[in-house]
Amino acid sequence: MMIVVMEKNASIQNISSVLQIVEECGFTPHVSKGEERTVIGVMGDERGLITEKVQTLKGVEKVIPTSKPYKLVSREWKQENTVINVRGVAIGGSTLTLIAGPCSVENEEQILEIAATVKEAGCHILRGGAFKPRTSPYSFQGLGEQGLELLALAREKTGLPVITEVVNPNQVELVAQYADILQIGARNSQNFALLQEVGKINKPVMLKRGMMSNLEEYLMCAEYIMANGNYDVILCERGIRTFETYTRNTMDISAIPLIKQLSHLPVFADPSHATGKRSLVPPVAKAAVAAGADGLMIEVHHHPENALSDGAQAILPNELYKLVRDIRALSDAIRR
Amino acid sequence: MMIVVMEKNASIQNISSVLQIVEECGFTPHVSKGEERTVIGVMGDERGLITEKVQTLKGVEKVIPTSKPYKLVSREWKQENTVINVRGVAIGGSTLTLIAGPCSVENEEQILEIAATVKEAGCHILRGGAFKPRTSPYSFQGLGEQGLELLALAREKTGLPVITEVVNPNQVELVAQYADILQIGARNSQNFALLQEVGKINKPVMLKRGMMSNLEEYLMCAEYIMANGNYDVILCERGIRTFETYTRNTMDISAIPLIKQLSHLPVFADPSHATGKRSLVPPVAKAAVAAGADGLMIEVHHHPENALSDGAQAILPNELYKLVRDIRALSDAIRR
Amino acid sequence: MMIVVMEKNASIQNISSVLQIVEECGFTPHVSKGEERTVIGVMGDERGLITEKVQTLKGVEKVIPTSKPYKLVSREWKQENTVINVRGVAIGGSTLTLIAGPCSVENEEQILEIAATVKEAGCHILRGGAFKPRTSPYSFQGLGEQGLELLALAREKTGLPVITEVVNPNQVELVAQYADILQIGARNSQNFALLQEVGKINKPVMLKRGMMSNLEEYLMCAEYIMANGNYDVILCERGIRTFETYTRNTMDISAIPLIKQLSHLPVFADPSHATGKRSLVPPVAKAAVAAGADGLMIEVHHHPENALSDGAQAILPNELYKLVRDIRALSDAIRR
Amino acid sequence: MMIVVMEKNASIQNISSVLQIVEECGFTPHVSKGEERTVIGVMGDERGLITEKVQTLKGVEKVIPTSKPYKLVSREWKQENTVINVRGVAIGGSTLTLIAGPCSVENEEQILEIAATVKEAGCHILRGGAFKPRTSPYSFQGLGEQGLELLALAREKTGLPVITEVVNPNQVELVAQYADILQIGARNSQNFALLQEVGKINKPVMLKRGMMSNLEEYLMCAEYIMANGNYDVILCERGIRTFETYTRNTMDISAIPLIKQLSHLPVFADPSHATGKRSLVPPVAKAAVAAGADGLMIEVHHHPENALSDGAQAILPNELYKLVRDIRALSDAIRR
Repeated sequence: MMIVVMEKNASIQNISSVLQIVEECGFTPHVSKGEERTVIGVMGDERGLITEKVQTLKGVEKVIPTSKPYKLVSREWKQENTVINVRGVAIGGSTLTLIAGPCSVENEEQILEIAATVKEAGCHILRGGAFKPRTSPYSFQGLGEQGLELLALAREKTGLPVITEVVNPNQVELVAQYADILQIGARNSQNFALLQEVGKINKPVMLKRGMMSNLEEYLMCAEYIMANGNYDVILCERGIRTFETYTRNTMDISAIPLIKQLSHLPVFADPSHATGKRSLVPPVAKAAVAAGADGLMIEVHHHPENALSDGAQAILPNELYKLVRDIRALSDAIRR
Repeated sequence: MMIVVMEKNASIQNISSVLQIVEECGFTPHVSKGEERTVIGVMGDERGLITEKVQTLKGVEKVIPTSKPYKLVSREWKQENTVINVRGVAIGGSTLTLIAGPCSVENEEQILEIAATVKEAGCHILRGGAFKPRTSPYSFQGLGEQGLELLALAREKTGLPVITEVVNPNQVELVAQYADILQIGARNSQNFALLQEVGKINKPVMLKRGMMSNLEEYLMCAEYIMANGNYDVILCERGIRTFETYTRNTMDISAIPLIKQLSHLPVFADPSHATGKRSLVPPVAKAAVAAGADGLMIEVHHHPENALSDGAQAILPNELYKLVRDIRALSDAIRR
Repeated sequence: MMIVVMEKNASIQNISSVLQIVEECGFTPHVSKGEERTVIGVMGDERGLITEKVQTLKGVEKVIPTSKPYKLVSREWKQENTVINVRGVAIGGSTLTLIAGPCSVENEEQILEIAATVKEAGCHILRGGAFKPRTSPYSFQGLGEQGLELLALAREKTGLPVITEVVNPNQVELVAQYADILQIGARNSQNFALLQEVGKINKPVMLKRGMMSNLEEYLMCAEYIMANGNYDVILCERGIRTFETYTRNTMDISAIPLIKQLSHLPVFADPSHATGKRSLVPPVAKAAVAAGADGLMIEVHHHPENALSDGAQAILPNELYKLVRDIRALSDAIRR
Repeated sequence: MMIVVMEKNASIQNISSVLQIVEECGFTPHVSKGEERTVIGVMGDERGLITEKVQTLKGVEKVIPTSKPYKLVSREWKQENTVINVRGVAIGGSTLTLIAGPCSVENEEQILEIAATVKEAGCHILRGGAFKPRTSPYSFQGLGEQGLELLALAREKTGLPVITEVVNPNQVELVAQYADILQIGARNSQNFALLQEVGKINKPVMLKRGMMSNLEEYLMCAEYIMANGNYDVILCERGIRTFETYTRNTMDISAIPLIKQLSHLPVFADPSHATGKRSLVPPVAKAAVAAGADGLMIEVHHHPENALSDGAQAILPNELYKLVRDIRALSDAIRR
């Protein structure tokens, strides 16, 4: 369904052209002639070309779609929350899911040490990057397949499921052999070739919000994955780009309850990338939980000063222990 | 203190001119010649013209101030939190302060009814607009002085202190006769003539963040008020403007803990203006408290459909009761 | 006229409430029931409360105004271009109007020297700030009334009309005694108290676009001035705030032809504030003229390194001479 | 080279840790102790980890890199303009290069008809999408390889070189078999896997600016391609995302002269995507040329109302003829 607003001085011919195209496309127009201008309501499911077609016609001021462009993602399509089970961890259900780990897998000692801490702190899933999208071609790009092997080793030692990023459609199969959840990073959130590829596997996908995606576009990215057959999609707010540069990005905290209204998919928050500053991770993590997030993804490192990437936003092990305790108390208070 | 980065191909003459001006202004330059380019550190308090002067010189690539431009506002200047006492309500201390009320004072019945609810719900201060800055000259502009009188009446009936907006330097004195706290709205946050005027009175001022102000600029606006002699300034994050239009503004949740780090002033959050949507007010209010806000400002209305302004973002009385209960539980859990 | 889109699961009661309010307000609703949802068209001039009222009702997903909120400003209201005559200079007509001068009036020698250059370069109007809105309370705030007197002196010597900024509703009368055009700066573009005041005088007003105002809000600010009786409004695009910080602001070049479509008012561009960098002023000035600007406002200074404000964006006299020549050639080529 | 600004209350131990790491990494620190705080200059080429390492240390307020992060892209590395020769068309030289064509290749008749117009209008290169990145999985995604064949046919008939987008690292080789220039779209501008792949071929690449990339990030994307061995990179400003939604994006006109200062690579402008509105394409195209663009990329269609994508921003053939004439006149006037 869409609304076509004609210009104030649109001619009868202009209006006729719109009506003709609408009818040719198999829709029913409802014409309302006001004192100032004519408005045409078009009934039916307008997904497809008709919006674009009508927009180009003479005398048309604007076309306003009134249906949402996404379908499988929407709560209108599925009322109850989607709960995804990953090796016994339920994501999107009644309890909070905590993912933690280093930005990058750096070596065996590092990932095993951090994995043990993540486990001990009471988190549920281990994160760690093997393929890293870096803004500079001269920065560390990740250990690649070796990183995947180390993640598998850490899983074996701790029992924690692992999540890691995939950046190339070619490597989806490879990454899916090792990871329990595949992550699509913010810079690839509109990499449709990649979205289609992860839509064809049967492993859950965490899709981070692009720093430039509004909510509708973001949900359309999830729709890409679902439209290709993979319904196990986890959303993750990680900050958008704004004029404020004090923080790395601006956490769009309202997006969390909004997505819960619009969609049945689980919604996480990533306070590490949203803020880029260690000291802001705990307060923003708590805020996300208070706003209704289903889970958190947090970067932690024993020696941030030696981290090969993003050390400034990693919290220390003792900060993770404290944060998990605080979040549990908060979470209990809210659910009461 | 500032850093002057010279261009790669800056000449010796270019460098000399910088040194000369720096010394003329009474500062000491420290020159570091690198392989690629020369960098000049300038020691001393560079507030004033020297930054701008040097920026215009030939061969200068950029000038980077390393001191913060604000002083009285900074936590470096004052370590302990500022606590402001308003008719027995302590703002910025160990307990959360809740401000609630309608967007506009509309008539006696309306303001008294809402004031009673605000009191009963356990909130501490009553808000209500008498002078309204509206984007359209054809919208309701507030009751003016009559609105101030009605607020005073509501205070008399409930004992709640009142806060209301001032939009014109001419009216600061008038508004200060009635209000316990004067509010500067987001659109006037860089109205320096108004800031100077409220800097000269001895009533607390709540300064909302401009929707286009970065944190440094925002704190400079508070500095304007303090530099004029009024130290009782309350800050309030109310959302910034971004590309996301699903919400009225984007609540910059990280700003709350950040301001607490940078400044000793109390920080509030206004989830009503930040979101513009009733259903998002409770989750975003909770998020702000979890992030460390000293207080909240919330719009409430018994009949939002009859509100003369901003009805869509006002919560209902029963929603306010529930929200206050939830926030108290949350607040207790955090402070444990 | 407005469109009310109901939620997918809106009840018949929800729809009835909307129809009732619409009719109570004196409008005629047109109901279109689609397969998915109901849409209600409301005919008539909906300026006023009805949009806000309906937005708060249960079952309403969104309300879409289809009329523009501004009227006097619109080209629908007045077809032909507004041409404003200032001491013999026609603004908004078939020839380009060039305004140049320093950011601030600093002293007699400075303003007279620059005024002579501005005149000699072939520019038409002299700019110079006497009351300066500065982000820091510790920066130079302008010479005040003495600055106005010096501008009047420069006008006397050169014959050039003068434009200067007004920042306080109190000072509108004072500034109007000296200036030929009053300027409202970007930070005051939504200072409605000030807009109303300049709406009551009979001198032209140049209204700069706020750095966070979208076009509709910007035109509403002009509507404020016109609704108060002053029809001689000049618009000026001076850059908006975006995530890109390499330039001081981001010149919204498309706004120039867009405003010419939407409004009959003259549109200027200010490449000095838009870029903040001397080397970018000439190319961006040319771009603005190519995009259809009616005029330019450019900062010039003989000794930018001694300027008391904004020296980094002021071009030198010889750069102004060259720019004016280039722009004339460009302007001739376009009009051919 | 970088500057490390210590916190006001940094301890001697904090400073020592920084000095130690700087020296371990093989750099020379220069310490400047001011009254307020200590600043440490680090000489040498700091590309690599040292910036990140230092940022995580205690007592460090901020780290300011003073070298640019890109090298091969910079004008400091290569003074003279890069000129790229594509089948006899020189790009980046003294004459303007005009690229035009439909958003998508739709069928043989359409592309041949438009190609003939593009040729006749005096444009130099034909554009047309075969692989289309669309925000909806339900929209037309392009003809794929068949589209490439049709482009090759159009080249054969007209002699015009062709440019088309590649969206998947897998398809780079395929697209390079047909296209004379490969295009990387805005949504893939930080798809590093794709950038690396086009960096390995020996065909020119047009890299569009991401709608959320600042200039430094954008130039780093070009650096990715060059660092992989392909030096024939063409940049293209196509609008960034801002809060202004009247236009599809906001053309960052200043970026054109700025990139010309920072880099030796050719810079184009795409007024079609920047504005999204047919009526704004001609004025914004002229503005880009006036600002110094080396070329333009323009969407044209004989029957925009039947276009399978982006019809609203395509100009008509007669508008293209007029625009090319206007631009030639403008271009002549500027170069005089």
